[in-house]
Amino acid sequence: MFKGGYTGKVLRINLTEKKFAEEPLRQDVAEKYLGGAGVGIRYMLEEVPAKCDPLGPENNLYFSLGPCAGTDVPCASRVVVTAKSPLTGAVAKSSSGGHFPAEIKFAGYDMIIVEGKAEKPTYLWIKDGRVSFRDAKHLWGLNTMDTQHFIKDTIGDQNVRIACIGQAGENLNLYASIINERHASGRKGVGAVMGSKNLKAIAIRGTEPVPIANPEAFKTAVKSMLQAMKESPIMYPTFSKGGTPGIIDHMYEMGVFPTKNFANTGEWDPLDSFGSEVGQNEFNHTREFCYKCPVGCSQVKLAKSGPYKGTASIPEFETIYSFGGSTLMKSFNEVIAADKLCDEYGMDTISCGVSIAFAMECYEKGILTKDDLDGIDLHWGNAEAMITMVHKIAHRDGIGAILADGVQKAAEQIGKGSEQYAMHVKGLELPGYDVRGAKAHGLNYATGYTGADHCLGYAFQEMFSVPIPYPVDRLAYEGKGKLTKWNQDVRAVTCDSFPMCGFVLDMALAGVCQQNAADIVNALTGTTYTAEDIYTIGERVNNAAKIFNVREGFTRSEDDFPERIKTEPMKEGGAKGAYIPQNEVDFMLDEYYEDRGWTKDGVPTEEKLKSLGMKQEFELLKKFV
Amino acid sequence: MFKGGYTGKVLRINLTEKKFAEEPLRQDVAEKYLGGAGVGIRYMLEEVPAKCDPLGPENNLYFSLGPCAGTDVPCASRVVVTAKSPLTGAVAKSSSGGHFPAEIKFAGYDMIIVEGKAEKPTYLWIKDGRVSFRDAKHLWGLNTMDTQHFIKDTIGDQNVRIACIGQAGENLNLYASIINERHASGRKGVGAVMGSKNLKAIAIRGTEPVPIANPEAFKTAVKSMLQAMKESPIMYPTFSKGGTPGIIDHMYEMGVFPTKNFANTGEWDPLDSFGSEVGQNEFNHTREFCYKCPVGCSQVKLAKSGPYKGTASIPEFETIYSFGGSTLMKSFNEVIAADKLCDEYGMDTISCGVSIAFAMECYEKGILTKDDLDGIDLHWGNAEAMITMVHKIAHRDGIGAILADGVQKAAEQIGKGSEQYAMHVKGLELPGYDVRGAKAHGLNYATGYTGADHCLGYAFQEMFSVPIPYPVDRLAYEGKGKLTKWNQDVRAVTCDSFPMCGFVLDMALAGVCQQNAADIVNALTGTTYTAEDIYTIGERVNNAAKIFNVREGFTRSEDDFPERIKTEPMKEGGAKGAYIPQNEVDFMLDEYYEDRGWTKDGVPTEEKLKSLGMKQEFELLKKFV
Repeated sequence: MFKGGYTGKVLRINLTEKKFAEEPLRQDVAEKYLGGAGVGIRYMLEEVPAKCDPLGPENNLYFSLGPCAGTDVPCASRVVVTAKSPLTGAVAKSSSGGHFPAEIKFAGYDMIIVEGKAEKPTYLWIKDGRVSFRDAKHLWGLNTMDTQHFIKDTIGDQNVRIACIGQAGENLNLYASIINERHASGRKGVGAVMGSKNLKAIAIRGTEPVPIANPEAFKTAVKSMLQAMKESPIMYPTFSKGGTPGIIDHMYEMGVFPTKNFANTGEWDPLDSFGSEVGQNEFNHTREFCYKCPVGCSQVKLAKSGPYKGTASIPEFETIYSFGGSTLMKSFNEVIAADKLCDEYGMDTISCGVSIAFAMECYEKGILTKDDLDGIDLHWGNAEAMITMVHKIAHRDGIGAILADGVQKAAEQIGKGSEQYAMHVKGLELPGYDVRGAKAHGLNYATGYTGADHCLGYAFQEMFSVPIPYPVDRLAYEGKGKLTKWNQDVRAVTCDSFPMCGFVLDMALAGVCQQNAADIVNALTGTTYTAEDIYTIGERVNNAAKIFNVREGFTRSEDDFPERIKTEPMKEGGAKGAYIPQNEVDFMLDEYYEDRGWTKDGVPTEEKLKSLGMKQEFELLKKFV
Repeated sequence: MFKGGYTGKVLRINLTEKKFAEEPLRQDVAEKYLGGAGVGIRYMLEEVPAKCDPLGPENNLYFSLGPCAGTDVPCASRVVVTAKSPLTGAVAKSSSGGHFPAEIKFAGYDMIIVEGKAEKPTYLWIKDGRVSFRDAKHLWGLNTMDTQHFIKDTIGDQNVRIACIGQAGENLNLYASIINERHASGRKGVGAVMGSKNLKAIAIRGTEPVPIANPEAFKTAVKSMLQAMKESPIMYPTFSKGGTPGIIDHMYEMGVFPTKNFANTGEWDPLDSFGSEVGQNEFNHTREFCYKCPVGCSQVKLAKSGPYKGTASIPEFETIYSFGGSTLMKSFNEVIAADKLCDEYGMDTISCGVSIAFAMECYEKGILTKDDLDGIDLHWGNAEAMITMVHKIAHRDGIGAILADGVQKAAEQIGKGSEQYAMHVKGLELPGYDVRGAKAHGLNYATGYTGADHCLGYAFQEMFSVPIPYPVDRLAYEGKGKLTKWNQDVRAVTCDSFPMCGFVLDMALAGVCQQNAADIVNALTGTTYTAEDIYTIGERVNNAAKIFNVREGFTRSEDDFPERIKTEPMKEGGAKGAYIPQNEVDFMLDEYYEDRGWTKDGVPTEEKLKSLGMKQEFELLKKFV
């Protein structure tokens, strides 16, 4: 089925045995799941044993590309890392751009699977069809930037591209990330899985050309995608100029930019604290581009004053929420500093910031004392204390050892009612949207297969009043099951399995992405997908992921919200008074499961799976229900 | 005269006019000065106007290689930066290795001269005979590591090599350095000169081959050099394993490792504070190699505990002196952190550490109060305060604005007798040898054309009991004039004009370096130098530099020591009781000037200059004496 660009070679590496082998990508899987998350999750279903320890050698790491990697398709050279998450126990899926993904393709691979556990710290050097298992003793303890620097120097080729972990991954911080250049596969602890395998880094270099089945049609399809991007009112005007921070003021206006660990007391707003138009303010400095991206949303910000003056990093919207609004920081400089530290340590900025905000609230409420916090006066807005906590969490030092497990497990360890301040779903910390004011976005958090994940089914209809596939009222409950399914299925294929940068989908291709994806893949590989086929792939991905989670023991009761979202009406702002009471949760879940064709407990049915051509997958599920 | 490898192309760039031109390297200069410092200083004599403002557009920056750059000669692809120093007003000369120097050669150049001043922040992108003057507005304010990262990404070639300044150079810190990768042209403020020109960075890429006149003879000469390096008892055994920190214990034993700003009270020793064998201790982590260097003395150290845990940097012997012994640090972690900050800010670690130690002593003596120090309790050994001072100095913040001028100018501003604690010669802070216990090393500090510079005429005879060219008593005064001249002349050619890494000279080639240099250059370029010719080149360099300084107003009275060296006998250790009283200073200077064939005021004579074939240079001097 797949021809041309999608050569379908998989590199399977076993760290325990220090062996590697090439194998063809399973064509039945590639046809039904395209690439990226879809292919990774489908492989996991058979290869990662049920109930295995996510930090044990039985868990695997999948680095999956899609057919477009290394080609001229804009924003589509991305790698999706999947594994069983040590943070949630569910599927982990975390993608990133940069140049590392294209390099995997140039080396001849569409997926790299890492199995087992190295006896001692190791890094992999992949070139010309060979994998060297290299001693990483001298790299263990180094941050992600130093690691990349020294590996390039050791190999003697600056064009080597590297994905690696920092100290957080080594220390099995449960939300450790994998960093390539300054790009993060940030969430759900894929860096901890890498650390548990004693794998410090993967360095790769390739020069293989990427063949194209139908060059003329391909050129046309790419051009049409670029045109749609150009016509978007947000893509270049906002994202090229301000990146994701460019939407903060808008979200704050809507009342969905969370502050003070979702207490939202009106004490903080981005204008007062960070100056007007955070996206385009004085901190803006320069920007970076992923491979073949014409937009360059990575906005480098430079701290301008205070103790972190001169620090440069690329804090995204989410990071400004977690280290800014949620902790009530009074200056942007500290957000930049915390963001840089997280990139260096290899640690998710959302989970880290939310964990610190959680600790701040526990401190305020007397649940955690100054003694519990190693003497740190962790009051709201204390920048120095926040930065100290980032260090402690990365090194699992003192209180940092507890917060490095994420808010769910931290609350279990702390007790004393702290769980009411633990803002997570399935153990994954809430991203930067207060979903009391955006119900489909919330339902996506509740039902997403990775936990509270803004990347799974971003409700841009609610956020930007985009009437695609139909207009919605963001505060209404009805119809949100169907919308969430649509958002999740479209994202699961275009963003995660194509895989394409999510911003392009939301900002430019919302209405045409399935057709666009079909046109591109068909021209590139010689397939004959329709737009509907593409959508179906996304639906398959969500079903396959759900099967994985069901066998791990997840039930309807984990498709839920933090207590605060269900019981505390919002105190201030554009969504004042909003919350999501339990009966509405139940209502939305019922609708969602029904639209999905799942049981009332949220389990995929035989009928549904067979209609999706997932007979094999049903057999895999059957043992567990 | 020069053929083959020494193509002799100079790239002259004028920032004011945004123009560049290629010109042949003056062959009369290349013949008499070889390359590196020699060529740079000789050009300066004619091109940099007397008494010009070193931070004005009339000062030039010379990036000079030698004939061996880009070839297989080990440790000989180095760049020497010369200019008029803003720190001292004398010649600035600062060399570095890494890969940037070889890249200049691959781009076709033996020297790059930067003139004038850009109207606004600019970086240069040099490739294929073209120079682009690129806007550096978005880089201004970034540290040296970020600057290199973003330039590589902007250019889209990771193999570009870059020399740049950080915030210190931008802020005209008088001891700002120029950084390439993690290598520093560190001393005498060449980074401030670059900053004064609004020049953030030079990025360069080349692929030209380096021709060799006589390949067989060249191979033999290189092999013989490698063999001598192998046979050295120190080169691989100490420098490959521990780098320059490997000699600290030895220096401390001898009583010449300065502590407490040269008060040397016996309160600090490296064993107590940093653990045994600093060179090979627990902090050792990995190492780096300059282009074609088989030794790899750059020892990466990793902070293991405390607030800077996980910080990696490459502190040299000198840095451990300035940020460790001289400030009485109690742990090595802070030295690593301070070193990294200096590399990032682009700031000399010696001058910075010595400036902080000076401030610590002023604070102890009540000359500087806590208020003067912006509220910082800068007592000896206060690690946090030291790190804060590094930040403040880089940004010229508060007291940092004074200390950023170096101890000489700082003492002038502070007054109150503080000058007695300002450890410098000609404004250049003393490196890590207490020269009361090593008189020739001291005489080199006193007479060196850049100020107190361990790189100009390192007295390895005194430090390592090497009997070349003859055995010496380190505490004796007699014969030190002659020895210093020999050391300075040999270094000026082999290390600075060949130019070759100084460690190779001291540790392996001490007895043979002139013959070795002649053999290599002759085989490479078709010249017919003898070992004596090579030595004479070194003598010329010291005379040319002295001419430059004479016209800038330097006299015998600046060839001197800090008061403490002349009046305070050493209190403890292997050189207890030693000092250098004024009469011995006079004695050594007289001997030195006589050996040099200079006047009693230290001015080169017509006779001497003509005997060296420096008639033109004498004409340049004549106007000023």
